[in-house]
Amino acid sequence: MKNLITDVPGLKVGNAQDAPLASGATAIVFDAPAAAGLATPGGAPALRDTALLAPEMTVARVDALVLSGGSVFGLDAAGGVIAWLHAQGRGLCVGAARAPIVPGAALFDLDNGGDKDWGRRPPYSDLGWAAAENAAAEFALGSVGAGLGATTYDLKGGLGSASAVTSRGFVVGALAAVNAVGRATRGSSPRFWAAAYERGGEFGGLGEGAPCDDALDFVVKRDAPANTTLAVVATDAPLDKAQATRLATMATAGFALALRPAYSPFDGDVVFAAGTARAGRTPDLRDLAEIGALAAESLARAIARGVYEATPLPFKGALASWEGKWGSGDRR
Amino acid sequence: MKNLITDVPGLKVGNAQDAPLASGATAIVFDAPAAAGLATPGGAPALRDTALLAPEMTVARVDALVLSGGSVFGLDAAGGVIAWLHAQGRGLCVGAARAPIVPGAALFDLDNGGDKDWGRRPPYSDLGWAAAENAAAEFALGSVGAGLGATTYDLKGGLGSASAVTSRGFVVGALAAVNAVGRATRGSSPRFWAAAYERGGEFGGLGEGAPCDDALDFVVKRDAPANTTLAVVATDAPLDKAQATRLATMATAGFALALRPAYSPFDGDVVFAAGTARAGRTPDLRDLAEIGALAAESLARAIARGVYEATPLPFKGALASWEGKWGSGDRR
Repeated sequence: MKNLITDVPGLKVGNAQDAPLASGATAIVFDAPAAAGLATPGGAPALRDTALLAPEMTVARVDALVLSGGSVFGLDAAGGVIAWLHAQGRGLCVGAARAPIVPGAALFDLDNGGDKDWGRRPPYSDLGWAAAENAAAEFALGSVGAGLGATTYDLKGGLGSASAVTSRGFVVGALAAVNAVGRATRGSSPRFWAAAYERGGEFGGLGEGAPCDDALDFVVKRDAPANTTLAVVATDAPLDKAQATRLATMATAGFALALRPAYSPFDGDVVFAAGTARAGRTPDLRDLAEIGALAAESLARAIARGVYEATPLPFKGALASWEGKWGSGDRR
Repeated sequence: MKNLITDVPGLKVGNAQDAPLASGATAIVFDAPAAAGLATPGGAPALRDTALLAPEMTVARVDALVLSGGSVFGLDAAGGVIAWLHAQGRGLCVGAARAPIVPGAALFDLDNGGDKDWGRRPPYSDLGWAAAENAAAEFALGSVGAGLGATTYDLKGGLGSASAVTSRGFVVGALAAVNAVGRATRGSSPRFWAAAYERGGEFGGLGEGAPCDDALDFVVKRDAPANTTLAVVATDAPLDKAQATRLATMATAGFALALRPAYSPFDGDVVFAAGTARAGRTPDLRDLAEIGALAAESLARAIARGVYEATPLPFKGALASWEGKWGSGDRR
C-alpha cells in the first residue's frame, strides 16, 4: 500500500504544472471506463461535463476525471485529457467516432502571484494533456498538479491522497486539491482537524491535543466565491451510477472532518466518486456504507496531507507552508 | 440564552409523545411564516411536502416544521400540526381558504419495543396536534417528542438542541432527533465525536481524550434503511429560500462532526433550515458562511446532547442510556 488513491486497482494519477504560472492539473485515468457519481456541497462550483453523471443520464462510465487550477479557464484541462485519451484510441464508441468521457472541476488560484497573463490561449488544455500522459501508480503530493497554486486561509494548500481497506476487503482511496477558504488546522495551532483519523503519522502525528484558543474563530481567506477544495474518491468495488452517487455524498463528510468551514458559499467543494469494478465481489448496502465511511475519512486524511506536504510558492510574500511554519521547532 | 433552538427569536418548539407507543412528534412553530430550505444527505429519507422548499417553487414561507417517529406512518404528524394551525386562523391565504404550510420528516422507530399495533388510525396526527399545541420557548430534551423512540447503535438516542451567536450578532440554533444507525460516541468510550465543539459541559465535558481503540470500528445498528437523524437549524437572519438551502447544506456538516457514519444508505438524514427575519440586518455572504458554520457546530452539539440527555425506554432489554452507562463511575 502506497497510501495513495492509486492503491485502488484500475486507475492511475498524473500531475502537470507550470511554476511561473503557479497552477496545474491532475488527471485520474481509469484503465477501463468506470461508473462515477458526483456530490456538490460547495456553493461556488466550476464543473465541466458533469450533468451526465446523474444516474438517470445515459452515458454509464467515464474514461478519466480531471482536477485543475485556473477557475473558469482551468475547465479547458478536460479538453487536453480528452485529446490525449483519443490519441490512445480510448473513448466511447459512437459509430466510427470515439468520445472520451472526462468530467472535470476547477479551483480558483487566479490571484496567487503566478503569471496568468495568457491572452487568447490559456495553458490548461496542454496541462491536461501532460497530466494524462504522466498518469502512473506513483505520483507526488503537495505543491503539484491542481494543488500547485492552492492555498488555505493561512497556510499553503496542495494535493493530498490517502487510502484504506474495508473490513471485507474493498480498497478505498481519496485524492484532494486543497484550496479551502478556511483552515485545515485547529486555529493557529499545527494540529489538523482530521487528527482523529490519522494513520501512521501521515500528517505529522501530532494528535488532537489540548483545546486551542482560536480553533473555533471564524476566519475566511476572502469574502468571495474564489476558493474550493476538489476531491475524488474511488473503490475497487463494482458500482452503478446510483451507488457511486451515494459514495460521493458520503465522502463529502470528509470536508467537514478536515476543514472549517465546510460547504461554504465561498467554496466550490465537489467530490467525484468512482468504482473500478476490479474487486471480485459485489458490495451489499453494508459494504457501501463502510466504503462510504472510509471514503470520508480517507478524504479528510488526504486534505490534511495536501496541506502537510505542500511547499511555498516561490514568490515574495507567498503564504507559508505547514512544513515551513511547523516543520522544526516547538509544535506544542 | 437557554442553549436551545428557541434562543432564535420568532419560533417555538413543542413535544408530544406516547409512552406505551414509544414514539412521538416535535413541532417547530414559527411566530410568522419563515423562509425555509432543505438538505437531504441521507440515503433513506421519509419526507412530506418538501418539494415546495426548492428555491424555484412558488410558496415562499412555511408556518411550521415537524419531526416525528413512526417512519412512513409518522408523516401523518404534519396533518395534525396543519389542523392545529388552521384552528388558530393560521395558514397561507388562498381565496377564502387557509392552507398552513408544514413540511415534515420522520425517523424509523417501529421496532423499538413500543406498541405499534394501531390498526386503521395511526396516532401521529394527534401527536402532531399536541406537539403544536405544546409549542413554547422552553422544552425538554432527551427521551421526548420525536426523540422518545430513537436509538443509536449502542446507546439510547433522543432529542437535542443547542444555540450560538455569530461574531456579528446573528443568533443560530439547532434541534436534532437522533436515531442514527451508528454511534455519536467515540467507539465504546463515553466521549462524544462532537467534543471539540462542546460548550460549558453541555454533554458531560469529557473532551476528546486519548484515542480510543475501537473508535474507528465500522458498526451499524442493522443493514436496513431504518434509522435516521432529523434536524432543524434556524437563525434570526432574514433569508430567502436559496440562502436557507445553502444554510441547510452547510448544517449537514454537523452530522459528520457528531456521528459515524454520516449520510449512510441506512439513514434518512435531513436538515431543514429557516430564517425568522427577526434580526435588524440583512446577512451578507460572509454572515451566511458564519451562520452556516455555527449551524453545523450547533447541530453537532445538539446531536451529542440528544444522546446525553436521553433516558431508557421502560421495556425489558431496552438499550442503555448514556447516563445509565456513564452517568456515575469511571468515565476515563
